[in-house]
Amino acid sequence: MSGGRLSEEALIARYFAPLAGPGAEGLRDDAASLTPTPGQDLVVTADAIVAGIHYFPDDPPAAIARKALGVNLSDVAAKGATPRGFLLTLALPADWTEDWLAGFAGGLGAASRDFGCPLLGGDTVRANGAALIGVTAFGEVPTGAMVKRQGARPGDRICVSGTIGDAALGLRLHPSNAQGWTGLVEDTDRAFLIDRYRQPQPRSALAPVLSRHARAAMDVSDGLAGDLAKMLTGVTARVIVADVPLSNAARRAIAADPALLETALTGGDDYEILCAVPPDALDEFLAECRSVGVPMTAIGAFEAGEGPPVFLNGNGTALVFATASFSHF
Amino acid sequence: MSGGRLSEEALIARYFAPLAGPGAEGLRDDAASLTPTPGQDLVVTADAIVAGIHYFPDDPPAAIARKALGVNLSDVAAKGATPRGFLLTLALPADWTEDWLAGFAGGLGAASRDFGCPLLGGDTVRANGAALIGVTAFGEVPTGAMVKRQGARPGDRICVSGTIGDAALGLRLHPSNAQGWTGLVEDTDRAFLIDRYRQPQPRSALAPVLSRHARAAMDVSDGLAGDLAKMLTGVTARVIVADVPLSNAARRAIAADPALLETALTGGDDYEILCAVPPDALDEFLAECRSVGVPMTAIGAFEAGEGPPVFLNGNGTALVFATASFSHF
Repeated sequence: MSGGRLSEEALIARYFAPLAGPGAEGLRDDAASLTPTPGQDLVVTADAIVAGIHYFPDDPPAAIARKALGVNLSDVAAKGATPRGFLLTLALPADWTEDWLAGFAGGLGAASRDFGCPLLGGDTVRANGAALIGVTAFGEVPTGAMVKRQGARPGDRICVSGTIGDAALGLRLHPSNAQGWTGLVEDTDRAFLIDRYRQPQPRSALAPVLSRHARAAMDVSDGLAGDLAKMLTGVTARVIVADVPLSNAARRAIAADPALLETALTGGDDYEILCAVPPDALDEFLAECRSVGVPMTAIGAFEAGEGPPVFLNGNGTALVFATASFSHF
Repeated sequence: MSGGRLSEEALIARYFAPLAGPGAEGLRDDAASLTPTPGQDLVVTADAIVAGIHYFPDDPPAAIARKALGVNLSDVAAKGATPRGFLLTLALPADWTEDWLAGFAGGLGAASRDFGCPLLGGDTVRANGAALIGVTAFGEVPTGAMVKRQGARPGDRICVSGTIGDAALGLRLHPSNAQGWTGLVEDTDRAFLIDRYRQPQPRSALAPVLSRHARAAMDVSDGLAGDLAKMLTGVTARVIVADVPLSNAARRAIAADPALLETALTGGDDYEILCAVPPDALDEFLAECRSVGVPMTAIGAFEAGEGPPVFLNGNGTALVFATASFSHF
């Protein structure tokens, strides 16, 4: 470590031990123990975010922490699982500061409480370059009931939670984005869209509803069009663009520049749930989503056939996208 | 991704999907499911290694992969747990090559088979700087039986597996180490010590023996002296230096330069097991270690009192170390 700053042990004791959950041994051991709930499978997932690639280094550290945990719990929710805990791998650049770390740990603690997901352990290392924040998240789901990405059948409805495209528009509007969009957007819309980019909200409340009704599901992280394509094994899909749920802020941005519709449908970082629901379960599924307070919209159907999903606009013609899927890689 | 190279999906399909274990969904989903064995706790741990900090970028990629998995399974073994699976977070630098990746994946697959620990999932991202390899490992241990780091009592014997100091000497002898040692060492000794640095061997065979007999345990990753100090809560410890097990290669290096004894006792990367064994269980413990084929040596005892461990040399005086603990941070 650099002279005059905290050792790894002191850093963990000061900033992360207060967040430790049961089984974490106060982060003073090399591992944590987790007693599984009888009759439940563990759902495990790992996603990392990197400074300058998945977030802007000057984003508020509390928001970065919330995003790192949120993107993982979004995967857990999409699999129908309830959060159980997480491990943090924090690679800090040479110029890390205690101010940044205090903000990060504060945001992580708040997100951990909000999402009901305690810190169980992890590792703090020196990055040889920019910061990387890796999270491994654990969820529980009844044995054998993990909702998989594949399995949609012809006739299943395509449903999506919340609103689509906000984060991709927020990325374009982000003040640190040199390739950004400088179109006329109200300050409140701009703030809303940027916040949707910075701080995804995992749809954990949907997990039991998905586990009961969805035939297949994933979270939308690389854009609606590209992620829907990933669900298509032995089926294709047709989306009614007018049915894709948009926030008022996104509607106004797209009205100002219609080319942004493609950004909304193909951009990344939505962290909404995309799923296949059998037609005879649709009404009950939508009612249960309402009852847990998460908006859910049917936007089309899976169909027999092959090939990428078709996005139909108002006059019945298919949209053609320049970039079908967003890649952070 | 950079032009002309594999997409993240193609990379995973080509190099990592062949390593996927049960529940991993062929790495085509965002999460894996793991059905816990009834009556077992899950032991979870995460450790990352960074190019230029924890390994040399020009080390063979297969050895780097084996080290990334090995250091995690060393923690799992120290907790008395049997490997169950792992997740990989791979952050690749801008100049990654398919040759490197093929070597890495080959080494990871071999290590995964050797250690009996299948790949369950993970994430591949672009590093913004040097490579980082993060592993989260899962093990199983009878419910409530995870061997903790704390808990040693006065009178418990201090035991350590294998030999100590080889990796720290190997690091000094590493051809890429600009601060290395160029003392006269036989080629075979040099190769042995460097390999001990590059490719730690997790002591998984000891897990059930530790679970039965050890009052406390950890793996030695930051040096024997510093890691033993971490076990001391409400106790202190006394080590007989002459009893610390050394390889023949390490003995010869220390004979050539006696100052290297401190390197051996305080350097890192041993990945041996350090544990506290009640005196009346010692004989049975040592016999069971022999029966699973892992050398285990008693090197001293925990004692009533406070303060750092004391290392006694042949004439009964205590060694004084310039650096008590090695830190990668």
